[in-house]
Amino acid sequence: MASRPIIFGDINGVSEGQWFKDRREMMPTSFHRIWARGIDGNRTTGASAIVLSGGYEDDEDLGDELIYTGAGGNDSNSKQQIEDQSWEHNDNAALLKSWDDGLPIRVIRGYKHKSPLSPKTGYTYAGLYGIVDTWKQSGKSGYKICRFKLQKLNNKSDYSKIDNHLDHSTKEKKRIRTTVLRVVRDSTLATSLKELYNHECQVCGTRIPTKTGFYAEGAHIKPLGRPHNGDDSLTNLICLCPNHHVMFDKGVISVRNDMSLVGAVEGVLDVNEKHQINLDNFEYHRSCHGFD
Amino acid sequence: MASRPIIFGDINGVSEGQWFKDRREMMPTSFHRIWARGIDGNRTTGASAIVLSGGYEDDEDLGDELIYTGAGGNDSNSKQQIEDQSWEHNDNAALLKSWDDGLPIRVIRGYKHKSPLSPKTGYTYAGLYGIVDTWKQSGKSGYKICRFKLQKLNNKSDYSKIDNHLDHSTKEKKRIRTTVLRVVRDSTLATSLKELYNHECQVCGTRIPTKTGFYAEGAHIKPLGRPHNGDDSLTNLICLCPNHHVMFDKGVISVRNDMSLVGAVEGVLDVNEKHQINLDNFEYHRSCHGFD
Repeated sequence: MASRPIIFGDINGVSEGQWFKDRREMMPTSFHRIWARGIDGNRTTGASAIVLSGGYEDDEDLGDELIYTGAGGNDSNSKQQIEDQSWEHNDNAALLKSWDDGLPIRVIRGYKHKSPLSPKTGYTYAGLYGIVDTWKQSGKSGYKICRFKLQKLNNKSDYSKIDNHLDHSTKEKKRIRTTVLRVVRDSTLATSLKELYNHECQVCGTRIPTKTGFYAEGAHIKPLGRPHNGDDSLTNLICLCPNHHVMFDKGVISVRNDMSLVGAVEGVLDVNEKHQINLDNFEYHRSCHGFD
Repeated sequence: MASRPIIFGDINGVSEGQWFKDRREMMPTSFHRIWARGIDGNRTTGASAIVLSGGYEDDEDLGDELIYTGAGGNDSNSKQQIEDQSWEHNDNAALLKSWDDGLPIRVIRGYKHKSPLSPKTGYTYAGLYGIVDTWKQSGKSGYKICRFKLQKLNNKSDYSKIDNHLDHSTKEKKRIRTTVLRVVRDSTLATSLKELYNHECQVCGTRIPTKTGFYAEGAHIKPLGRPHNGDDSLTNLICLCPNHHVMFDKGVISVRNDMSLVGAVEGVLDVNEKHQINLDNFEYHRSCHGFD
């Protein structure tokens, strides 16, 4: 392991687009400290940087959006999966920690990574990304792989680069303070769903009061967008309080076809008779989070 | 009141930057339906459009960020406040509803609005904005005014324009489905706070489990950014579960200087002895939300 501290966010002296001849050139700073490993970080602090290096056959790269495969179960010679991946693998747990804490991740593209954005030789710094979703699925190999969806933190308001002491104990050690986001997407469609449920959470019945009304969130069962491509329809939405929305999206609770809850919360999802849910969506959600 | 339905998001045939000779030209569609009123909407459905027309002396316009004054208490001749505003005013309650439901708001700049972005005559469509904060403060007049902070929905991923039936009952009536956001900003500073509290909410003690850890949110007591300009420091942060973060940011709960809760939740804020909070920040928060 590296002796340099983990730093989250941009590193002084390293700009987006910067090119490195080889992995060794990245290592004198905290930029990416670890030789021959894609993920720099640990389960306690989180992951601060990843390298896309063609090591995983299931990686996808759309530029501002990446679908990254976790670590483990991969034969270093053939680059193929030879067993299931686990969330408990240190590198995968590090990425989960970054998701939980909303930490920014430096993304680096290597010459072996199959993308027109990759350099012909060496490595380039692609900028800061945030994890927006994680799940498991069967990879091309048939083995279960851990998947991380990352989006580029484009907007200047997404993060601020300010040198700052992280806390009082780390004297003299300047860290980058980075503001990151948890984003809750909702649609006007969700409004009618929330009205149907009177803004009560379908898991716990909680109704969050506001100054002149109530607040709830529409949660998509099968996520919108690549690679899930869930529908934005009432058959794919449930009405949740923010706490259970977080737990549902993070896959620590799911719903069986008989509407009983599975995972960290016991009970039954309250479903209004006018609300028809497509059970395939729950099946998909369970499969993503190991409840199958 | 107008007979046309309220529609949220972009209107077919009206593009950002479009100019209207006068208010009457906006009214044949659902773009902005109401003569001589800034806010188009109601407390049940929300507000879909606002006009910046120089009617309120406290309005601020930074382009992509607006600080808008609510309705009421304003003398139509002198344009000055002559009494306090109330959240219960239909137009203010409509904007609160849009905040609660995360609905997009069409912003229109009029020739009387004092900004270099205003047209010399008539009105221009400035695009879609979302409400990110609301509070009360004493205006230039000394009377309490309702304030709304709006940010432009710049990012294409912030919303999608898709013609869609909102529900099965509105046959033939095409509506715009718009995806909007609730944004939770956090900083690496918040990480140390969350560790200090073991990821337990200081209001309710809830700890949200994730696959390999726990999830909590750092809530700024005095908000960051204009016009509040709160510090990003531990003296201005508390550790909350998402539910109580929503309630705190929406100002239905606050904290007295003795750490007792005020508003929709009874009890006492749990404060670790190592966590020094600046009481001025709580005082500011209470003042913003009518707990003074």
